[in-house]
Amino acid sequence: MAWFRSLIRVTGIKSRNRAPNTFSLASLASLSTCTEATNKYSGLGPTVPSEKPRVVVVGSGWAACRLMKGLDTNLYDVVCVSPRNHMVFTPLLASTCVGTLEFRSVAEPISRIQPAISREPGSYFFLANCTGIDGDNHSVHCETVTDGPDTLDPWKFKIAYDKLVIALGAQPLTFGIQGVKEHAIFLREVYHAQEIRRKLLLNLMLSDVPGISEEEKSRLLHCVVVGGGPTGVEFSGELSDFITKDVRQTHAHVKDYIHVTLIEANEILSSFDDRLRHYATKQLTKSGVRLVRGIVKDVKAQKLVLNDGTEVPYGLLVWSTGVGPSPLVNSMELPKSPGGRIGVDEWLHVPSMQDVFAIGDCSGFLESTGKPTLPALAQVAERQGKYLSHLLNRIGKAGGGHANGANDMELGDPFVYKHLGSMAAIGSRRS
Amino acid sequence: MAWFRSLIRVTGIKSRNRAPNTFSLASLASLSTCTEATNKYSGLGPTVPSEKPRVVVVGSGWAACRLMKGLDTNLYDVVCVSPRNHMVFTPLLASTCVGTLEFRSVAEPISRIQPAISREPGSYFFLANCTGIDGDNHSVHCETVTDGPDTLDPWKFKIAYDKLVIALGAQPLTFGIQGVKEHAIFLREVYHAQEIRRKLLLNLMLSDVPGISEEEKSRLLHCVVVGGGPTGVEFSGELSDFITKDVRQTHAHVKDYIHVTLIEANEILSSFDDRLRHYATKQLTKSGVRLVRGIVKDVKAQKLVLNDGTEVPYGLLVWSTGVGPSPLVNSMELPKSPGGRIGVDEWLHVPSMQDVFAIGDCSGFLESTGKPTLPALAQVAERQGKYLSHLLNRIGKAGGGHANGANDMELGDPFVYKHLGSMAAIGSRRS
Repeated sequence: MAWFRSLIRVTGIKSRNRAPNTFSLASLASLSTCTEATNKYSGLGPTVPSEKPRVVVVGSGWAACRLMKGLDTNLYDVVCVSPRNHMVFTPLLASTCVGTLEFRSVAEPISRIQPAISREPGSYFFLANCTGIDGDNHSVHCETVTDGPDTLDPWKFKIAYDKLVIALGAQPLTFGIQGVKEHAIFLREVYHAQEIRRKLLLNLMLSDVPGISEEEKSRLLHCVVVGGGPTGVEFSGELSDFITKDVRQTHAHVKDYIHVTLIEANEILSSFDDRLRHYATKQLTKSGVRLVRGIVKDVKAQKLVLNDGTEVPYGLLVWSTGVGPSPLVNSMELPKSPGGRIGVDEWLHVPSMQDVFAIGDCSGFLESTGKPTLPALAQVAERQGKYLSHLLNRIGKAGGGHANGANDMELGDPFVYKHLGSMAAIGSRRS
Repeated sequence: MAWFRSLIRVTGIKSRNRAPNTFSLASLASLSTCTEATNKYSGLGPTVPSEKPRVVVVGSGWAACRLMKGLDTNLYDVVCVSPRNHMVFTPLLASTCVGTLEFRSVAEPISRIQPAISREPGSYFFLANCTGIDGDNHSVHCETVTDGPDTLDPWKFKIAYDKLVIALGAQPLTFGIQGVKEHAIFLREVYHAQEIRRKLLLNLMLSDVPGISEEEKSRLLHCVVVGGGPTGVEFSGELSDFITKDVRQTHAHVKDYIHVTLIEANEILSSFDDRLRHYATKQLTKSGVRLVRGIVKDVKAQKLVLNDGTEVPYGLLVWSTGVGPSPLVNSMELPKSPGGRIGVDEWLHVPSMQDVFAIGDCSGFLESTGKPTLPALAQVAERQGKYLSHLLNRIGKAGGGHANGANDMELGDPFVYKHLGSMAAIGSRRS
């Protein structure tokens, strides 16, 4: 239940001075009807014309949150479904692992991004996983995330949508390598960063305890990063800063044992141009990071094995080799974009499903659009979320908010992405 | 491994501009000799006259940290043994559960309290549990705390001491009631507060998900506190503030379902005088806390049972019914004080053991001293730690720092405790 650690409090939000108990009877009604209708499988029933139309957003990442922020809650009720109650500012996550930044500084509660959620009568946040989408009935199938049967059995429920936005992101790629999930730590969520910090500290402390062998000490303090993309490079840079600036002071006894190794199959920062790549390589090497060209074959509890048979003992293993489609996306029988993402048209709409849109890492342009699949970057997700919020607001204003209300509507300008460049910080005052 | 979550980083400490690699050869020597001597059971061997004497401190609470802060590291090397690398400002812990205070604000790394630790050649922090004390050989037996065999097997080691200070605190009392350890949360460590916050948020979110019954919703949002001492009362107050100020805003849909019940066998704040007790009772009731006079008989996953058979369903259960001796203290064959604490004389010295002192919640005056056992308060621990640091510094200055060096020494003024009064905050702007 590691992810639970990443639940953060959602207090401290300004009151909107609303009268208490202003629940929408309509939405309560629709809720109860639905409960009666489908016993043991309740949910939010379809909205009635007298109600605001409901936008259901699956996910709480960059794309989802930017969308929710932009939605006009006078036009729509907003329902967010996600196993995470906050958005993570992923580009700065690496900096939290060694305390350069506090965890709270890179996480923002959804209810602060869209204050209507959990406050306005028809707007909700549901802590749940989306298990399926029923386009024919305009509804989403979900299952709650609980502490487990001991305290509360997880249960299933449905949410009817007028408009559905799929923004459930991607998941780390492991290339089917044994032991990655068990022994490596990813760097996608706040609890990942917390686990890295905890492990780093634990190893620093244990390596100072009498009775540990020189060999074991070196292993414990060997930090291995697999994947030379921006995340892996930025984390390696942060780590070497941490070692130079902090460990030398606060763990003087073991400072000479700690090392960082970055393993990459090709070149680091392959998406960057040569000059930047060479600069990064020089800077990382200078700051003590060992760059190793290699392919990981197998990961065990205390060591990993490269293709050439080399064994690399480690105390901390961070895995960041890019992302790919999540199981739910894979399971969806939809036209996909190259790379297996949910295929969308120029308006980020899923052509085969009425009122369904997909944005962020989980989506990609269909080949028919002639547009390339965009990189899995916050920059893209952010722009798509913003675009779609405007589009949905326009539809809502034109009275097309309810299910099938916009079928023949002109959607206006398509989404156009202009890349503003990428950046990777490779340690203090170097980027 | 919940407590691991409470490991906090120890960076950001000013450098003392010391030359690198200034390890004391002597202490390294003593280490290795000891390793050879007792194979598979290494540690820090006895100090030699040419070295600084070594003060070993078991524990990292108020008493231990105040002592370490006051020790003169020109006279002594300091070695701290504890499963926790920081001190917790316990009186403010209740305020962190609902976000009034940040967790980091109530935890201070030991290496910041005593900067010599993990920096100076002979001073260490060992992340370990003390498993026994061998007074005859002036040594402490310890076992490391690791992530478990999968990554690193815990191992045993010994530390020879010149002076030993036992300050390992107390542990929560459960009165042998079934299920307390399994289902209730104590409020002694940072990770306890984190768990309470997590659970509170989780229940608030789950109670808003369609498909949950009215009954289940009420249970999930029923926060029960057992124990009407300062901690229980303060936590109840914080909780009712949280409900009034935050939940009404951020979880409007379920705000009418959340309630706080405080269960106490006798009167709340029994150590306080009548006037204060009545005031607290009035204020708590006014702020919506239900005060129940009762004795808990049994604790189950979702409900607890009172002596009279009443069943109390709960979503969050916090247990704070005072503290008692830890298993290690119970296992020590020493003259004890009333209440089973380690018996000490007027100088906080353990009469039956040379060079051994005990302070804080784990210790109490021997009946022979004619002094009463002092309450388990930070106030007492703090004062004892300060007193003992002065005493040990005086001994050190007088050349009695090494083992058995102070046997015939005059210890000077005994420890005298003057109670400055107690205080409990029962919600914002009320105390």
